Amino acid sequence: MAIQSTVALSSRDDLALAYTPGVARVCEAIADNPALTREYTWVRNTVAVVTDGSAVLGLGNIGPRAAMPVMEGKAVLFKQFGGVDAVPICLDTQDTDEIVRTVTALAPSFGGINLEDISAPRCFEIERRLDEALPIPVFHDDQHGTAIVVLAALTNAATLLGRKLGDLRIVICGAGAAGVAVTRMLLAGGAVDVTVVDSRGVLHAGRDDLNSEKRSLVGVTNPRGVTGGIADALRGADVLIGVSGGTIDESALAGMTPGGAIFALANPHPEVDPTVASRYASVVATGRSDYPNQINNVLAFPGVFRGALDAGASSITDAMKVAAATAIASVVADSMTADAIVPSPLDPRVAPAVAAAVAEAAQAA
Amino acid sequence: MAIQSTVALSSRDDLALAYTPGVARVCEAIADNPALTREYTWVRNTVAVVTDGSAVLGLGNIGPRAAMPVMEGKAVLFKQFGGVDAVPICLDTQDTDEIVRTVTALAPSFGGINLEDISAPRCFEIERRLDEALPIPVFHDDQHGTAIVVLAALTNAATLLGRKLGDLRIVICGAGAAGVAVTRMLLAGGAVDVTVVDSRGVLHAGRDDLNSEKRSLVGVTNPRGVTGGIADALRGADVLIGVSGGTIDESALAGMTPGGAIFALANPHPEVDPTVASRYASVVATGRSDYPNQINNVLAFPGVFRGALDAGASSITDAMKVAAATAIASVVADSMTADAIVPSPLDPRVAPAVAAAVAEAAQAA
Repeated sequence: MAIQSTVALSSRDDLALAYTPGVARVCEAIADNPALTREYTWVRNTVAVVTDGSAVLGLGNIGPRAAMPVMEGKAVLFKQFGGVDAVPICLDTQDTDEIVRTVTALAPSFGGINLEDISAPRCFEIERRLDEALPIPVFHDDQHGTAIVVLAALTNAATLLGRKLGDLRIVICGAGAAGVAVTRMLLAGGAVDVTVVDSRGVLHAGRDDLNSEKRSLVGVTNPRGVTGGIADALRGADVLIGVSGGTIDESALAGMTPGGAIFALANPHPEVDPTVASRYASVVATGRSDYPNQINNVLAFPGVFRGALDAGASSITDAMKVAAATAIASVVADSMTADAIVPSPLDPRVAPAVAAAVAEAAQAA
Repeated sequence: MAIQSTVALSSRDDLALAYTPGVARVCEAIADNPALTREYTWVRNTVAVVTDGSAVLGLGNIGPRAAMPVMEGKAVLFKQFGGVDAVPICLDTQDTDEIVRTVTALAPSFGGINLEDISAPRCFEIERRLDEALPIPVFHDDQHGTAIVVLAALTNAATLLGRKLGDLRIVICGAGAAGVAVTRMLLAGGAVDVTVVDSRGVLHAGRDDLNSEKRSLVGVTNPRGVTGGIADALRGADVLIGVSGGTIDESALAGMTPGGAIFALANPHPEVDPTVASRYASVVATGRSDYPNQINNVLAFPGVFRGALDAGASSITDAMKVAAATAIASVVADSMTADAIVPSPLDPRVAPAVAAAVAEAAQAA
């Protein structure tokens, strides 16, 4: 990755224009009217990809230096698919207040903030506080990128299965960053019967061991008041979405209604082996590139930020996320099969479609 | 300015390598051995150009947003002349502690920190604390970039005048960021008789209105114990260096020893009109591109950071700065005239020469 000059400085005149004294007039114009930042600087096309290195891929808390390759890879994808100039920012602190303070301080430098690989439940508070504090979009990709692509995939899976999203019994296994966001996204997208299971069992009102994020899900999930473990939750379920990083016993799958869907998204080891999963469901997806139906958030984030930046959005709302999911699903709606419910991560049609949908949703708000 | 991918992602294999799962191996390698950051990421070639917008050019405290065009211009120059990937970071705080905390937090993302347009005297403390805290070079360009080029120019001017730096009586008008740094740089480079004047007069031991930075200069400057104003300081002086932003009365210049040098570096209005200055000195320099002898710190910073990054230096020492000045002076040593004591800001020989000299000085330390 590198910085590229978009102007050539080959003469003293060029230099006088791009730097002192010419630049002074541009500065004065922005001082008079801060909105001109969009016109006169690269800020409107930039996103900071911010991590504290606390939850990097499946590697855990490996710190900011070791997290840099992921952030760089992400920045390259931002550019290639969204035309977004993304800058990796790896923070030497894992203190919530300090992260919020730091990102707030550097926010004037960027058009958006993509949070990445920050562990739960800190990630929820950090995102919420930054979103409230800043006039630019803040988006925790591990939550919302995954959630958008899951909603897209489940939308198409439901169509294939001849079902409506609102009629499906859905079980989400995992209540970390991705699990919470997937739950909220599916509800925002029209799902009604969603039950969430964490490592200690089904989330329900009787649990007194829930953090505030999980507790907030209790009121909007588990409409049938299920208690117990994953096998209890899966009894009669149509859809299992694994975002836990653990494994799920085959015996628990036996209780599912046949002909549904299993998304086993843990990387690199899916919660359920895809071959096993296909015995209990008609549509199977994973997070891996070597199986069909890869749920890869590169389908979402480049287009989401492209659209948000183009619209000058100050936040990324649920409506914008649902629009992104719908756009991703639409790209393959006419050609999909049980082995191709989402577009390829390299499909060049995706990011422009997502960007247009997100920008439209932003402007409609 | 833009981000550029240095790899092409055209297949699923490319994607699997640059992003998950391939990137995990790179992360693990760095987690085991943080020194591999240099090898596997862009960090070793990057510099954050950090400002709080408190002293932007001659425009003053216009804030972080309006400062962005200067930082972008700087980043473009970093790339063009030094091959350095520089990222503009405009901070939404002007609190010293907060700036130190913020830059410390984001430091793992960069190979060096270039501070820019931060007002004095805060800039001294901020630079000192960051330099102590961080394992990477920290360089306040308004101080040291200017100081290096002044030392280079005065070295060549002394040669032209047939004098030695250590024999010249030098007066520095201005004791802000640039004035303090120029004073220290000239002393480090071999000057002996340096007298500093601020807006209230000559710095001397009897003054009780000096901030700590100015007070620290009292012990190392003004060897003849001059008191009074600029006219008193200039009586018998060989060299006047204006870094004040104010103006200097022609009557004060009359006391200078004829045949010396006047550097009037305020931009866009030099402290002394160059035509007037040439009546009192044989060599005249300004900060402007439309007069001969432009003292432009683009001669210094790209090569200084190129050299420091190449050497893996943890600080930019006085020896490295003196080496940079010597290298700049050397580029035109064989061809110089009174109207060309420093290279053109566009001279492509400068940055490589500075980089090599700085890297050598870093490795010798």
